[in-house]
Amino acid sequence: MSVSTGPEATGGPESVFDWIDTRAEARAKAGLSRRVRPRPADSTDLDLASNDYLGLARDKRVTGAAAAAALRWGAGSTGSRLVTGSTELHTELEYELANFCGTQSALVFSSGYAANLGALTALSGPGTAIVADQHIHASLIDGTRLSKADVVVAGHCDVPQVAHALATRGKRRALVVTDSVFSVDGDLAPLAELAVACREHGSALVVDDAHGLGVVGEGGRGSVHAAGLAKAPDVVTTVTLSKSLGAQGGAVLGPSRVIKHLVDTARTFIFDTGLAPGSVAASLAALKILREEPDRPTRALDVAQDLAFRLREKGFKVSSPTAAVVSVQAPSPEAAFGWAEACRAQGVAVGCFRPPSVPDQISRLRLTARADLTEADVERAVRVISETGASAGAVSRPR
Amino acid sequence: MSVSTGPEATGGPESVFDWIDTRAEARAKAGLSRRVRPRPADSTDLDLASNDYLGLARDKRVTGAAAAAALRWGAGSTGSRLVTGSTELHTELEYELANFCGTQSALVFSSGYAANLGALTALSGPGTAIVADQHIHASLIDGTRLSKADVVVAGHCDVPQVAHALATRGKRRALVVTDSVFSVDGDLAPLAELAVACREHGSALVVDDAHGLGVVGEGGRGSVHAAGLAKAPDVVTTVTLSKSLGAQGGAVLGPSRVIKHLVDTARTFIFDTGLAPGSVAASLAALKILREEPDRPTRALDVAQDLAFRLREKGFKVSSPTAAVVSVQAPSPEAAFGWAEACRAQGVAVGCFRPPSVPDQISRLRLTARADLTEADVERAVRVISETGASAGAVSRPR
Ligand SMILES: Cc1ncc(COP(=O)(O)O)c(C=O)c1O
Ligand SMILES: Cc1ncc(COP(=O)(O)O)c(C=O)c1O
Repeated sequence: MSVSTGPEATGGPESVFDWIDTRAEARAKAGLSRRVRPRPADSTDLDLASNDYLGLARDKRVTGAAAAAALRWGAGSTGSRLVTGSTELHTELEYELANFCGTQSALVFSSGYAANLGALTALSGPGTAIVADQHIHASLIDGTRLSKADVVVAGHCDVPQVAHALATRGKRRALVVTDSVFSVDGDLAPLAELAVACREHGSALVVDDAHGLGVVGEGGRGSVHAAGLAKAPDVVTTVTLSKSLGAQGGAVLGPSRVIKHLVDTARTFIFDTGLAPGSVAASLAALKILREEPDRPTRALDVAQDLAFRLREKGFKVSSPTAAVVSVQAPSPEAAFGWAEACRAQGVAVGCFRPPSVPDQISRLRLTARADLTEADVERAVRVISETGASAGAVSRPR
Repeated sequence: MSVSTGPEATGGPESVFDWIDTRAEARAKAGLSRRVRPRPADSTDLDLASNDYLGLARDKRVTGAAAAAALRWGAGSTGSRLVTGSTELHTELEYELANFCGTQSALVFSSGYAANLGALTALSGPGTAIVADQHIHASLIDGTRLSKADVVVAGHCDVPQVAHALATRGKRRALVVTDSVFSVDGDLAPLAELAVACREHGSALVVDDAHGLGVVGEGGRGSVHAAGLAKAPDVVTTVTLSKSLGAQGGAVLGPSRVIKHLVDTARTFIFDTGLAPGSVAASLAALKILREEPDRPTRALDVAQDLAFRLREKGFKVSSPTAAVVSVQAPSPEAAFGWAEACRAQGVAVGCFRPPSVPDQISRLRLTARADLTEADVERAVRVISETGASAGAVSRPR
């Protein structure tokens, strides 16, 4: 760390970003450099890395809807949602999202990230205490940082700690904030218990269902619907359109007065260009498929559990999936990276999560199940991951 | 303001959001309620409200590219840029953006908002002082709020004040942050002078060229290029793909080491789904048109100046456009709203900016010029705006 002593002795404009090189070297030494790896359109890799849980991103009904909407409505929405950036398509998607998830209303943002920032900042402020699960997504963390609220971080899925923080808060209003399905390990938050704690203490509950929508609950209606909280007057849900729906964008769902309040005050709604018509139409098409094929979510879950079971059998430390995410622990960031590379070299794309993208500093492979993976795909994946994992030293009890 | 006295006396879950109704009533009284107004695909309104400065959002070459890309690459990018969310199209766009604007490198984000948050947070931190123009865009403000840096707000376009803040800062590193073309009034920042001040004091300069790209400078290469700063080792530019390029998304442009640093550390890059392929392809097509038709930007500027001249002649308080934005002052938020409504009723869509979307609390109509507006369009616009403006009491010296 450099000591701050006022203006830098100026070494000319070339040296202004010299500190970046120092940081880059440190990261390289720690095995934490990242690299963008562009993929071709016609990759034959087996994809266990994307969040396209239902296999809809390339479904012809979804891509066809995106294409038709771009041609009919334009490539972009041309302005902020309150100026020219709201088309009738946006309204239709908001209606369908609320209807599908069982909430009163919905509001579409340009990303799930923006939806989280918007919801947390508009629903809090200096008079509010936020009690956040330790493992919430980066976008929710940024939302709490922007909120001007008192922020208390509670242990992961620790309801008594949440209740205690609510009971002892110094602010009148409160928000409890959690992911429904935690993105790294795929574990579920205790939503029903959290809702009870919130009610005991006059708090609202904000749930990020990014990895729940389309996967969890009846027909993929999401974790909040599954917990019987979709119509609750004190629960707000955020979702993304970029995972199981295969598109891009995000939304906030909840009581109509909350949604109206976001229209009036959420900065990431007011000061951001509306979602592109193609992404809106793709999300609508994906929701339609979800209604017509209500078994897709179950299939994604089955594949996840199958993957986890087989990898655990091979001796790996594997999470117990309750959604489409499966995580497999690696002994170090370098080992995780090497392992993921080795899988990729054999045509299996897997995610590799290392610090700072993991809440507990444990590096892992992150595998995502998809509803459209075949039995043969799963077998191939398990074979490649186990073989390469043995060399990566990731087997805790080899067979 | 409510006094914070600890947990709210619980009136049941229904009352948790009662405070929202109180706020909504106050806003309604102040004339500051907002409403989403979805537009149809085939609106015949004359559009002076969107940011589609070059008329490319519905250009068949742009929408065709978006449609083809959705079909070929999928409706969404399926993951974060570092996992599966980077396609070869993203790389191509990054190459073309850097090439067009004359910078070493570029990095695409899911929105201009996300690009600004990413650039400011990754390039600052507790050891940094940020000196920001008073009128910067909301997304830059949120970036400074997330930055953990010391933040000093300098007067609008006040270079001596910026220099003073840099000279007296208590931190080693510094960032000066400004819009190039300010979004509300369309005025230009003194980029060359700011760069000189930055160099004198060992600071980097971050310029948000959202409203400059495609409009300002040779062939629309933007304000930073026009100021001769595109290749500067201490200047970073952010842009959006959602205005003159007619698509969606954002990007950060600058020295390669800065871009690499963002890949490694920018939270809105790492933890956000990659931009949808359709939006990437649309931006690429728009850049190609800009190269082939280098006079489009001039045409947008001419229309803006023509609009401003004619409205000033009618007695309105009008900005002096140096880009495609023209602003016309209104006597009050209510008058601005009524005026915009009256224009719309006569088929002319104009923007209406009221607090808190205006930095100086002055409400105004915000008109955007487009390269594809005809002489007859401009005449019709001026007629409708003047007639309705007279009733709104906005004429300061009637003729
Ligand atoms: C839990 C969670 N919330 C929010 C987001 C952000 O959504 P988006 O990528 O649509 O911005 C993500 C991932 O990207 C996520 O995993
Ligand atoms: C100056 C400025 N910067 C950034 C943005 C955000 O860009 P985007 O809408 O692409 O998120 C906007 C407008 O939306 C803007 O006006």
